[in-house]
Amino acid sequence: MSSSNSSPPWEQPESAHPQTGLTVFNTFTKSKVPFVPRKGNRVSWYGCGPTVYDAAHIGHARNYVASDIIRRIMEDYLGYDLNVVMNITDIDDKIILRARQNHLLGQYRAQATALTEQTIEDASSALYEFANASFKGLIEGRIGRAIGSDDDWKAFALAVDDGNDSEFVASDPKASMNYTAARNAFQALVVARQTLVAGKMSRAEAVALVDGCEDVLAPWLDRKHRADVTDQRIFRDLAAYWENDFFEDMDALNVRRPHLLTRVSEFVPDIVRFVQRIIDNGYAYEANGSVYFDVAAFDGKNGHFYAKLEPSSKGNVALLADGEGSLSKRGNEKRSESDFALWKRSKPGEPTWPSPWSAGRPGWHIECSAMASEVLGEQIDIHTGGIDLAFPHHTNELAQSEACFGCQQWVNYFLHAGHLNVKGQKMSKSLKNFVTIKEALAKYTARQIRTLFLLSQWNATLYFDPKSMEEAIAVERSLSNFFTNVTALLRDSRLHQQGSDAQRRILAPELELLEALEDTKELVHRALLDSFDT
Amino acid sequence: MSSSNSSPPWEQPESAHPQTGLTVFNTFTKSKVPFVPRKGNRVSWYGCGPTVYDAAHIGHARNYVASDIIRRIMEDYLGYDLNVVMNITDIDDKIILRARQNHLLGQYRAQATALTEQTIEDASSALYEFANASFKGLIEGRIGRAIGSDDDWKAFALAVDDGNDSEFVASDPKASMNYTAARNAFQALVVARQTLVAGKMSRAEAVALVDGCEDVLAPWLDRKHRADVTDQRIFRDLAAYWENDFFEDMDALNVRRPHLLTRVSEFVPDIVRFVQRIIDNGYAYEANGSVYFDVAAFDGKNGHFYAKLEPSSKGNVALLADGEGSLSKRGNEKRSESDFALWKRSKPGEPTWPSPWSAGRPGWHIECSAMASEVLGEQIDIHTGGIDLAFPHHTNELAQSEACFGCQQWVNYFLHAGHLNVKGQKMSKSLKNFVTIKEALAKYTARQIRTLFLLSQWNATLYFDPKSMEEAIAVERSLSNFFTNVTALLRDSRLHQQGSDAQRRILAPELELLEALEDTKELVHRALLDSFDT
Repeated sequence: MSSSNSSPPWEQPESAHPQTGLTVFNTFTKSKVPFVPRKGNRVSWYGCGPTVYDAAHIGHARNYVASDIIRRIMEDYLGYDLNVVMNITDIDDKIILRARQNHLLGQYRAQATALTEQTIEDASSALYEFANASFKGLIEGRIGRAIGSDDDWKAFALAVDDGNDSEFVASDPKASMNYTAARNAFQALVVARQTLVAGKMSRAEAVALVDGCEDVLAPWLDRKHRADVTDQRIFRDLAAYWENDFFEDMDALNVRRPHLLTRVSEFVPDIVRFVQRIIDNGYAYEANGSVYFDVAAFDGKNGHFYAKLEPSSKGNVALLADGEGSLSKRGNEKRSESDFALWKRSKPGEPTWPSPWSAGRPGWHIECSAMASEVLGEQIDIHTGGIDLAFPHHTNELAQSEACFGCQQWVNYFLHAGHLNVKGQKMSKSLKNFVTIKEALAKYTARQIRTLFLLSQWNATLYFDPKSMEEAIAVERSLSNFFTNVTALLRDSRLHQQGSDAQRRILAPELELLEALEDTKELVHRALLDSFDT
Repeated sequence: MSSSNSSPPWEQPESAHPQTGLTVFNTFTKSKVPFVPRKGNRVSWYGCGPTVYDAAHIGHARNYVASDIIRRIMEDYLGYDLNVVMNITDIDDKIILRARQNHLLGQYRAQATALTEQTIEDASSALYEFANASFKGLIEGRIGRAIGSDDDWKAFALAVDDGNDSEFVASDPKASMNYTAARNAFQALVVARQTLVAGKMSRAEAVALVDGCEDVLAPWLDRKHRADVTDQRIFRDLAAYWENDFFEDMDALNVRRPHLLTRVSEFVPDIVRFVQRIIDNGYAYEANGSVYFDVAAFDGKNGHFYAKLEPSSKGNVALLADGEGSLSKRGNEKRSESDFALWKRSKPGEPTWPSPWSAGRPGWHIECSAMASEVLGEQIDIHTGGIDLAFPHHTNELAQSEACFGCQQWVNYFLHAGHLNVKGQKMSKSLKNFVTIKEALAKYTARQIRTLFLLSQWNATLYFDPKSMEEAIAVERSLSNFFTNVTALLRDSRLHQQGSDAQRRILAPELELLEALEDTKELVHRALLDSFDT
């Protein structure tokens, strides 16, 4: 026995597989970086939610399911204490336009109690104006004049091979979609003229014409009557309808709901205060009742840099204009084309909220800056959204918040879900090439769709087509079969045990199997820590 | 706009509350040390299970519930991938003795078809031998002779004030318990003598005598007839009965079952191999068919140190003897009193398994070393058990495994649950001062008992008495009320929302409340990382 009673020092163990911790692919660095929440285990998370004016499609599903997968890994598997906030954009040019057009078309349909010369004249004017606006630049070249009659339309249809002419198709991503709308309207118009000649002029015939022409009538009615729309409920009702529809889809896809939902309509006073702070800090200016962010005053000044997320898109005016909304052509209010709206003065027929500058509404980008800061504080750990939002939406969010708070990194980790592509094209509402979530769920189970998404990395582009779905279905089936077999084996083994001596020691092959299971679990663990490599 | 398109460097965030990670109170260091599993997220865990010969008491519950609380925090909250192994000691001197005495007493009772002079003589011999053995050293002093008659017993009873004499009570922790057994036997004997004189001698009278004298008759019968017990099933049946009873208790206390259970009876060949390796390494020797660990050959040699866990107990022969078992008085087989049995040659009436040294059975300590290594490999992350096991049981486990594998730290973290005390005394089966788990659960709910345990740190001594239980019940009640109130408020709020506008923005007081909740969750998180500070 040793003479001393003191023990040798205990040795701190070393890990054979050092626990490197979670790394995440951060859009700021375009690389995987260690994930460090600002406050211990607590993680604040702001995710861009939908603009609620239409059915969500499978491209949206990709973003929300990708976020949901990350969230479940962090929350359930890694044990982080998340606070997930999502917004609902229920004030937006798209909502205003859709609600107003729906409203005016509905009114027009209700008043169309008989088919008349006037109805036919309205529909044909609508068609000609729609065609001239949609195919502008092409019409003159093909038929030498603007469309002003049915014969003009027929000549144009012939010239573009009934919409199949390849140069015509390539002229604009929306060419085919718009051609279909115009052709439908023209066919309805032809039928209506014959019907009227035949002396049939009842309400049914009138409604058939309105329905056939709705895509061309809606913008035509909107141009004529938008200023008469004063009931703000129509905007709220449309948004509420599609918000509800959105959450039905998310529930069906088994996407966990956010801890907190922020609707723009509920935060307008906060947004106004936020805009005022940016003005006070010298990074925004008022012009004609609207307020714009002054990119030149911000970029490169006081440690601020514009377009950190996607420097290559800086100055991409087309993308920026898209983010400004379709109701926002305002002449020369902006000091620079790179500037963007924080507050928009509303025109007649647009909903309004009070502000020091005008009766108007918030710009798109400002809402997220203001709401996220209001509920999560002046810095956020994680911000999620689809990669198409990186510029200009998230870029502008960052600029606004940094301009408001005087900070340099309002968000620490930007996690952007990759695109979902269909036949090489991004799926999008405005291209009408979408499969809605409800359509997809009529064909596939939520688990099959989620399996497809799990087979690609969350930030990679994903292809949604029958072939990739077949692969996903096969994977989901083998997983499902595996668990069915395991359940059956367990049941058999339990029955077997009851019939014999229940005391049975574990055997070497079982220990080997357990070891293999442990090794596999470890591999899975390391993969999940590697930016959620599913 | 700045002239360059390059972004500024992204700054790695710093945590305001650095995530220090889990620390645990380790018996090796008697301090909180960082917890580092050897293999990433995987944690191997061996917990000492029960020796199954009697009902588990609330002192056992303390150990298993403390382990369960730690396990649930690690498994469910911190997300470790645990592999929890527990043993069942189903070969042990206590089991052998209890099974054999039960068996012999049952046989004796079955054969007692009538009350006879012989029965009375048996019972009185048993009483006198019991008293002389139990109160040895006191009897001569008080009455000047050993007890050999009823009058001798009466004289002794008078001398020790019917067991209330304070010097007598203090002479041995078991004095009161043994006195009660002897008094019960004497009373039964007095009744039986009168009954026989009165001519009543039926089976009922005989059984009444046997039952009244069972505590003195059982060891008496065992001394006379133990060698005749050859049916090994009686040992297995007793162990199986109490194992089942133990898991009933654990289930009732909501203690999660281990992933793997190892019974000593199923691992004897592995234990024999393990002992052979220790002999081959020069740390053990055979003597008269038994094998002993050679503490002197081990301690201070080749980087090995004996009694690292509890250096102050090194050389505590009394504690060591207790660990050797009551059937193991073997003369001078050991080279040193500090040596301990790895293999015990069985005497007649004891179960046997084959070995190169003798038909015998494993020592108590060796089973855990061998079984834990067999299923978890040559090093273990966590070993749990009650603090009373630190010496000699865990000390000897460590020595054996290090002697077998030539390693220095077979276990990295020894987590010992604190004692449970009743009136200043440790609750223990051998002191018969215990409240069984079933008795406790008849009085309190499992949640109340678990709450009591949560109110003390898992490694601190805990007091189980009506007063501490009252406190626990009050705490459990306020938690329960809180959740009931929250549920009611949530229901009210849902009803209220349905009746009004469902769209309602979050308000400042709610945000403050959420912030307070987040702060509290963070505090809880840090407390749990601080060696599971519940």
